[in-house]
Amino acid sequence: MHQFPTLNDILRAHELIKDSIHKTPVLHSLNINDQLGCELFFKCENFQKVGAFKFRGASNAVSNLTSEELKNGVATHSSGNHAAALALAAKNKNAKAYIVMPENAPVVKKNAVKSYGAEIIFCKPTLEARESTLEKVVSKTKATFIHPYNNFQVICGQGTATVEFLEKISALDILIAPVGGGGLLSGSAIAAKAIKPDIKVFAAEPKGADDAFRSFKSKQLIPSVNPKTIADGLLTSLSELTFNIILNYVDNILTVNEESIIKAMFLVWERMKIIIEPSSAVPLAAVIENKDSFQNKKVGIIISGGNIDLKKLPF
Amino acid sequence: MHQFPTLNDILRAHELIKDSIHKTPVLHSLNINDQLGCELFFKCENFQKVGAFKFRGASNAVSNLTSEELKNGVATHSSGNHAAALALAAKNKNAKAYIVMPENAPVVKKNAVKSYGAEIIFCKPTLEARESTLEKVVSKTKATFIHPYNNFQVICGQGTATVEFLEKISALDILIAPVGGGGLLSGSAIAAKAIKPDIKVFAAEPKGADDAFRSFKSKQLIPSVNPKTIADGLLTSLSELTFNIILNYVDNILTVNEESIIKAMFLVWERMKIIIEPSSAVPLAAVIENKDSFQNKKVGIIISGGNIDLKKLPF
Repeated sequence: MHQFPTLNDILRAHELIKDSIHKTPVLHSLNINDQLGCELFFKCENFQKVGAFKFRGASNAVSNLTSEELKNGVATHSSGNHAAALALAAKNKNAKAYIVMPENAPVVKKNAVKSYGAEIIFCKPTLEARESTLEKVVSKTKATFIHPYNNFQVICGQGTATVEFLEKISALDILIAPVGGGGLLSGSAIAAKAIKPDIKVFAAEPKGADDAFRSFKSKQLIPSVNPKTIADGLLTSLSELTFNIILNYVDNILTVNEESIIKAMFLVWERMKIIIEPSSAVPLAAVIENKDSFQNKKVGIIISGGNIDLKKLPF
Repeated sequence: MHQFPTLNDILRAHELIKDSIHKTPVLHSLNINDQLGCELFFKCENFQKVGAFKFRGASNAVSNLTSEELKNGVATHSSGNHAAALALAAKNKNAKAYIVMPENAPVVKKNAVKSYGAEIIFCKPTLEARESTLEKVVSKTKATFIHPYNNFQVICGQGTATVEFLEKISALDILIAPVGGGGLLSGSAIAAKAIKPDIKVFAAEPKGADDAFRSFKSKQLIPSVNPKTIADGLLTSLSELTFNIILNYVDNILTVNEESIIKAMFLVWERMKIIIEPSSAVPLAAVIENKDSFQNKKVGIIISGGNIDLKKLPF
């Protein structure tokens, strides 16, 4: 039996982290609403510190460590937003962060992690190498491993975005979050259903990385095999914990094609003048592909992040 | 003698337009502050309706027309943000807008103006053709010509952004606006100096289109000849009215090179996750080029707009 976070756990997380995170704005575009025939609200975690919601979860996980644990630092393996988020969260508590990264990670990501004062340990670019390197680091340093999503406190932290979202726009009929490992979706779904029991919670996932969709439909945890999508934040597979939360709290998972993701991303950039990464465009792509189901609804979308190589855009 | 707008005129404009404009947010980036050694605040008119501050001035100009005048509509010649702004401002008052545009204007600009229901009259792409075509339109329709910046009420409308800015961040030491025709700069300078007499007001201008700089230094109105800059909103020359306001209210004009504009634009996109057009990056470029003069100051920058062809980026 898994113990799921509750709304109280998420509210407690919000209390703990609220002075170190940005309370991100909720934006909308009348033009996009007109085009799609529904009322869309965007919770802009691309404006969060380190440019992604991940800072909420990492901050909460670090805030829940004892001072004894903090002395030994924290560790993770990631080449993405969680690495930078954990590095900054640790720095804010004067704790050391050890980040295992594949040696071929983009220079910009290495620099981001370094700029927060974390120690990077490079490894071969395979999951096996990442895990075994992390094990060595943890056994040597006694640092606490903070998993990017298979972690109770990380999930509570991610749920705080939805607490703020519903505080601001209480009339939402539907909430849509992208799903990769499922940390954001799990926290969002628990918070939303507890605050507003009649809200529908949907996940949006690229067709090219649809392990959550297949797991949800078959009620069996099916990991990703060779996922392929421009939404590089959604390549990971669900974990036991996030899979079970999603089965219990999420109403449906919508899968979308790559063209819709690029179209949705372009629409947000052009009309809202904000920079979002491809993973963040997946929920809007789901609305575009299923326009009729959302007519006249108030739909909340969590924009997960804004970290993208501006020199390699898909349009 | 010119009659200059006063703070009261600007406050009256704000009362008139405040329900039709967006009260745009003020954003900042700790990372950019660290890089530059000062505290920067950005008033984000890229989030204004039609994606630019121009909607403030156009709305105020249209709001000041009599119902008799509104019946005949409004007219202007422009291929830029003022065209779209006037088209929407007129639509909001159920008035007709006639926009004279060069036949080679980008399709995206033509479509924006059309989407607000304005009538486009095409002409050859010369200033002479634009002015003579506009004259014909005005004499035929009796529409009121709304100049993009040589217009008292337009300047008052542009000044309302600074009223909101100083309401939010009252401690600003310096305010910087980009200068093209000078409408934004004029309204901003009058508002800022009246609200906070000890504030410094600077203009920022590309070296490749430095007519305002040369006019300011020589105290003679010198028009642009063959200006060349990526900041396509700043190609126009000052008018009699804006030149005289600038001489009286602006402390200095800083010119910047093209590389700094692109660098500043990239910095804002990458760190703040917002889309700004090249003209909007000119004030930040001035801070980058004159870093020492801004140390430890609180500097307010007006981000003028976010309309840029996302398929033709300079980086």
